[in-house]
Amino acid sequence: MAQGIPDEALMNTALIKHLADVAKDAALLQGVLMRIPEKPNSSELVTYAPFTLFPTPVPKAVFLQALALQTHYNTLVDKISQDPDFLQEALASTIAVDDFTARLFRIHQQILKEGRCQSIMLGINRSDYMLDQREDGSSSLKQIEINTFAASFGGLSSHTPDVHRHILKVAGWQEKSQCIPDNSPAAGQARAVAKAWELYGSKRAVVMFLVEESQRNIFDQRFIENELWKRDIPTVRKRFDDVYKRGSLDQDKRLFVDGQEVAVVYYRNGYMPENYISGETWDTRLLMERSLAVKCPDISTHLAGTKKVQQVLARPGVLEKFFPNQPEVVEQIRATFAGLYSLDMGPEGDKTVEMALAAPDQFVLKPQREGGGNNIYGSEICQVLEGVKESTERTAYILMDKIHPAPAQNYLLRQDAPLEITNCLSELGAFGVYVRTSLFISAEAVAK
Amino acid sequence: MAQGIPDEALMNTALIKHLADVAKDAALLQGVLMRIPEKPNSSELVTYAPFTLFPTPVPKAVFLQALALQTHYNTLVDKISQDPDFLQEALASTIAVDDFTARLFRIHQQILKEGRCQSIMLGINRSDYMLDQREDGSSSLKQIEINTFAASFGGLSSHTPDVHRHILKVAGWQEKSQCIPDNSPAAGQARAVAKAWELYGSKRAVVMFLVEESQRNIFDQRFIENELWKRDIPTVRKRFDDVYKRGSLDQDKRLFVDGQEVAVVYYRNGYMPENYISGETWDTRLLMERSLAVKCPDISTHLAGTKKVQQVLARPGVLEKFFPNQPEVVEQIRATFAGLYSLDMGPEGDKTVEMALAAPDQFVLKPQREGGGNNIYGSEICQVLEGVKESTERTAYILMDKIHPAPAQNYLLRQDAPLEITNCLSELGAFGVYVRTSLFISAEAVAK
Repeated sequence: MAQGIPDEALMNTALIKHLADVAKDAALLQGVLMRIPEKPNSSELVTYAPFTLFPTPVPKAVFLQALALQTHYNTLVDKISQDPDFLQEALASTIAVDDFTARLFRIHQQILKEGRCQSIMLGINRSDYMLDQREDGSSSLKQIEINTFAASFGGLSSHTPDVHRHILKVAGWQEKSQCIPDNSPAAGQARAVAKAWELYGSKRAVVMFLVEESQRNIFDQRFIENELWKRDIPTVRKRFDDVYKRGSLDQDKRLFVDGQEVAVVYYRNGYMPENYISGETWDTRLLMERSLAVKCPDISTHLAGTKKVQQVLARPGVLEKFFPNQPEVVEQIRATFAGLYSLDMGPEGDKTVEMALAAPDQFVLKPQREGGGNNIYGSEICQVLEGVKESTERTAYILMDKIHPAPAQNYLLRQDAPLEITNCLSELGAFGVYVRTSLFISAEAVAK
Repeated sequence: MAQGIPDEALMNTALIKHLADVAKDAALLQGVLMRIPEKPNSSELVTYAPFTLFPTPVPKAVFLQALALQTHYNTLVDKISQDPDFLQEALASTIAVDDFTARLFRIHQQILKEGRCQSIMLGINRSDYMLDQREDGSSSLKQIEINTFAASFGGLSSHTPDVHRHILKVAGWQEKSQCIPDNSPAAGQARAVAKAWELYGSKRAVVMFLVEESQRNIFDQRFIENELWKRDIPTVRKRFDDVYKRGSLDQDKRLFVDGQEVAVVYYRNGYMPENYISGETWDTRLLMERSLAVKCPDISTHLAGTKKVQQVLARPGVLEKFFPNQPEVVEQIRATFAGLYSLDMGPEGDKTVEMALAAPDQFVLKPQREGGGNNIYGSEICQVLEGVKESTERTAYILMDKIHPAPAQNYLLRQDAPLEITNCLSELGAFGVYVRTSLFISAEAVAK
């Protein structure tokens, strides 16, 4: 969208109420759905997934920049995942204090020791940005984080453009409606999964979605499943427990679950410590990692997406190591880094502590864990840092410059929530997918 | 579908449970939705509209027959609607005892007296059939009724083919999946509404959906609204009360509601006595009928769809009157008539009473009212007829041969209902749309 929504419309209560009613029904009809919190594993009652009444304007140049960057970010993630020495060095301090990262790293090491039996790897990444406001009024793309594991909302967001186009049309803003670009991450993700399945090379084998215990966001995944079924690729949904109880490897390390061979394990669960409820869950993760199934992502790519790696990449010279002869790529990636600071023990980390305590409002303190909602701001940064600053516990965090996006007025539509105008800070997420395979495997697949 | 579902699959509880879960999510994602009974005017919580897990097989010849017939049925309905003498004669006995039909008829007469100011008429009809089993095992198409007013489920049923294709694919029946034809009544209906709107000839004028107080089935209508918006045709949803309070005709009889000129009144409410809660509702219906807006349908076409007219059409020589030189059309239409019998006072009606009391299981007693669920069967026919047989009250009913479709085993999916195998009796509904306009109006529209 070239321009925002006129103030007089934003303040027209009757219009907004009408548009919200139309928007909710449009979202429901487009499949922008969620199960309800009370019954996350039932589809008897559903609601619309939370969304904004109006689309958020993004300058075209910035939007195209995010898309162009994604190829470089995919390359970067892939290179990191194949550099065990870098991962070990980057994560050493985190592993020492963060049990979750440590356990993931142990699996990574065991796989390296045994030797990877599957060189095909499927990456589905989403790089999230905010638009930092410069003093001259322009905005620059700053990365918040990159998700290399279970990046979600590709399904639902494939259908929000039509909802927003409809709303703008009903509101009478035909031209604005035409400014909304198409979005089809679900189709793109399915294409990548299909490629991995095809390269695996068994028509009977299935794509296994490794899903959560509580599946409120199932519809986001169903869109990708449906795309795969359209290509005659069978999909199944299994929990860690299903795989633990009824999964096994044969002598060729082919993974079987409930009697079906698994070509691709697509993790939509396993990114938070809470997802691993017992030693058995960890054993199950290891079983899948050791298998011949293509993993999305494999354990190394999972680790490449950690916040600690993000912080290490911001150090001088590190990006150059991964793109030795491509200064322009280094420059493009680095331009999206906010200031990122280590809290490792030693003078560099001490300086970070000092800086954060002196001006906590300028920073975000990020613990090494995924899933959103864990970041620490303002005076709470001081509280946390005062508690851990003398111990190695502090290395479980990184510090990041706070980004200052321009707030945009909008209405957040969410089940049973009052209709109130809200200052919204938006993130822009760019999806990127890739299938990596050695030339040898690739040639073999072609020969089949 | 050429063949039904194998018994072993129908009895496989685990498979059926899995397929039902997949089917519900597929229906939800396709927009096959309903609001919940507890909150029929809120879209905060919705469920899937009731549907069968598997599609119902229909012989291809019978299916094509229903489609081919629809053009003739449209022609027939249209001719009846323009034949005031026929309507008056056919409905005379019903009007004498049925207050609802009488009130509709009074509006019809008043419009005739004043003279119709709008000759464009939009028809959206749905003819419903059952497949009567012959003794030789073949089946013949028998009409249950024709809906000329607020025929629904064109929106939702546009999306069930994809749901059923998906289910058959997931069940492993690729070939069966490919036998399901496309279905797009919503697009067809929208095309007809768009044509009527265009002929009305005012870009600013809206299509007004005249909707119920309780709007559980809103999504069925939203599909048509969305198709219209895609063509840049504005739609609004109004209740009788909205039109009563804020609707008026200008000196040219143009209808304005909430300040907007109405090009097309698309009735989705007004087919049951219960829809007319007061004299004001009847006044509002009259206001709309008197207006220049194109009605879908107009009052005459509404009356042409009554059960009494259906019964009169089955009398010898009546179809011939409407298709004087087309014996093959008469034959095709008549072939779909079940036995239909008058209960008017006199020897013909007396014979019908006698016949019904002697073998009630062979008939259905149908009161002159719409909306489904009002038909009377078996011993209840005797109870009702014994009560009314000596009075003119009996003329509020018609008697119809009971049709004997072959039951098909299936699973009915409905919010919170247990998953049980059920003997289902299905109807096949064929939609047909048309826009009638005099040549004069048509030429004028072209000249604009």
